Amino acid sequence: MTTHSRQQLPKNPDYVGLVRERFAQQKPMELIGASLGKIELGYVEIRVPCTESIMSISFVNYVHGGIIGMIADSAMGFAGLTMAEPGMVGVTAEYKINMIAAAVGDELVACGQSVRSGSRLTVASAEIFAVSNGDRKLVAMALGTLIPTGVRTDSPLV
Amino acid sequence: MTTHSRQQLPKNPDYVGLVRERFAQQKPMELIGASLGKIELGYVEIRVPCTESIMSISFVNYVHGGIIGMIADSAMGFAGLTMAEPGMVGVTAEYKINMIAAAVGDELVACGQSVRSGSRLTVASAEIFAVSNGDRKLVAMALGTLIPTGVRTDSPLV
Amino acid sequence: MTTHSRQQLPKNPDYVGLVRERFAQQKPMELIGASLGKIELGYVEIRVPCTESIMSISFVNYVHGGIIGMIADSAMGFAGLTMAEPGMVGVTAEYKINMIAAAVGDELVACGQSVRSGSRLTVASAEIFAVSNGDRKLVAMALGTLIPTGVRTDSPLV
Amino acid sequence: MTTHSRQQLPKNPDYVGLVRERFAQQKPMELIGASLGKIELGYVEIRVPCTESIMSISFVNYVHGGIIGMIADSAMGFAGLTMAEPGMVGVTAEYKINMIAAAVGDELVACGQSVRSGSRLTVASAEIFAVSNGDRKLVAMALGTLIPTGVRTDSPLV
Repeated sequence: MTTHSRQQLPKNPDYVGLVRERFAQQKPMELIGASLGKIELGYVEIRVPCTESIMSISFVNYVHGGIIGMIADSAMGFAGLTMAEPGMVGVTAEYKINMIAAAVGDELVACGQSVRSGSRLTVASAEIFAVSNGDRKLVAMALGTLIPTGVRTDSPLV
Repeated sequence: MTTHSRQQLPKNPDYVGLVRERFAQQKPMELIGASLGKIELGYVEIRVPCTESIMSISFVNYVHGGIIGMIADSAMGFAGLTMAEPGMVGVTAEYKINMIAAAVGDELVACGQSVRSGSRLTVASAEIFAVSNGDRKLVAMALGTLIPTGVRTDSPLV
Repeated sequence: MTTHSRQQLPKNPDYVGLVRERFAQQKPMELIGASLGKIELGYVEIRVPCTESIMSISFVNYVHGGIIGMIADSAMGFAGLTMAEPGMVGVTAEYKINMIAAAVGDELVACGQSVRSGSRLTVASAEIFAVSNGDRKLVAMALGTLIPTGVRTDSPLV
Repeated sequence: MTTHSRQQLPKNPDYVGLVRERFAQQKPMELIGASLGKIELGYVEIRVPCTESIMSISFVNYVHGGIIGMIADSAMGFAGLTMAEPGMVGVTAEYKINMIAAAVGDELVACGQSVRSGSRLTVASAEIFAVSNGDRKLVAMALGTLIPTGVRTDSPLV
């Protein structure tokens, strides 16, 4: 997708620490065995090993589409978070995901990218790859919208 | 959403058994604590109690958006499955979901409905409610596309 | 879709006049021959006759999918507008649309509904019907997100 | 977005002629003043000058979101068409689009790309740019699904 300029200065100098701290608190990521990969300004990777507990049963060894959506959503949310002002987070307003190929491999990597980061609206995209023996295959693409909000204020969805 | 006619005859007379059998095999549903609710021709509910392990940390007691997408996707898939010919299943090609309100409550219920069921394309929708003390609040809406395929043949995504 | 309560009081008592005024200024609606149907609080219809100029060529007499998306987007936008505070409009942040059946008929009617109207986020849905000799057939479903903004201020997309 | 390999051989050697022929028959493209840009295997551009008739009235000189969706949908459809076997076309099953920035400029260019082309499912993406004095600004991103079908057979949506 459109390459985000990574030369600009972050609004939050400790965006890496913020991503790590908030990711560690996300129980659902722990539940599915997900961990963080690369973290850059505007870009975050989420990795999940292809264990039996996240498989769909439709076809042998396919990761469940809902799990793919879940790491795509999270990767987009954390990519948006790297761009946020201190004290702000982004709440997912919506996302959509297309499955491209069977999600078979050793692990999945969801690569989230902030496409646009504004005061009232953040747009992010994600590409999800299945990795087998070091080879990457694109298995899904996602687009989503985040609404910036203060960590101590109510969600825009209340 | 558009009310599906439930008076037509099912193509697979044992669609309820099929849904129960395949749901029981889905490890990711077990992982998040999900269970089946109502199963009718063209309509399937998936319920998940709002335990700590599926919470987002953005705001207190909110269910993670990825979990909401996961049960929405599954409810649409199983609703499509009730309409399928014997020996056929639907593979998720894509879905999209809008968050409407904070997912706070005792449990979530994803109500999946088959909007159109054809030989090359199935369209399904889902409404996801948070239930608190018996009151239902709409928290998300989803739309998705399934591609029918034989259970013994390859996925269209291979 | 979820029935919007129409018993509440409008924030803008002249929401019907506002919809008519703004619709009349939309050149693209004139271009495709669209007109307004019913206007209620949270609900707006847009109608377009199935003339040759809006046909796709893939199959005889099918309306182009882009035209269907265009009236769906507008119907959702105007449904959101009926709920807005005086001086506010909603800017489309995103929408998605599923084609359900061939769009063949005398005219298309896009029925837009506000699902949720908040200060930072409006969610709307649309059902698009083809009408032939008075019979309605569902041909598409859409979901979208609007960002409320002041008419005299900049767009959130600037 | 994911770069499509353009080194592979086309299934239809005259894919450029096919795109030109079918585009010329699309009345809605003529209606909005659209024309074809680059045509490569897996990639098609659609251009539209920013005339008054395609403007939204929400903000001065913004192109209507429905028009942006229309050229995005078409660019994805034609990108898919370049990959199709002779005698086959793709029918849009669904698409979704995120607005990134205000669509202001001399012209818009929708760049459609085939992400995956299979016998039962094609996935395409589009990036839409506003061009002003030769400068390109990303204004929207889209993802869509096409169902391959024979030109002489019925649509999968019938």
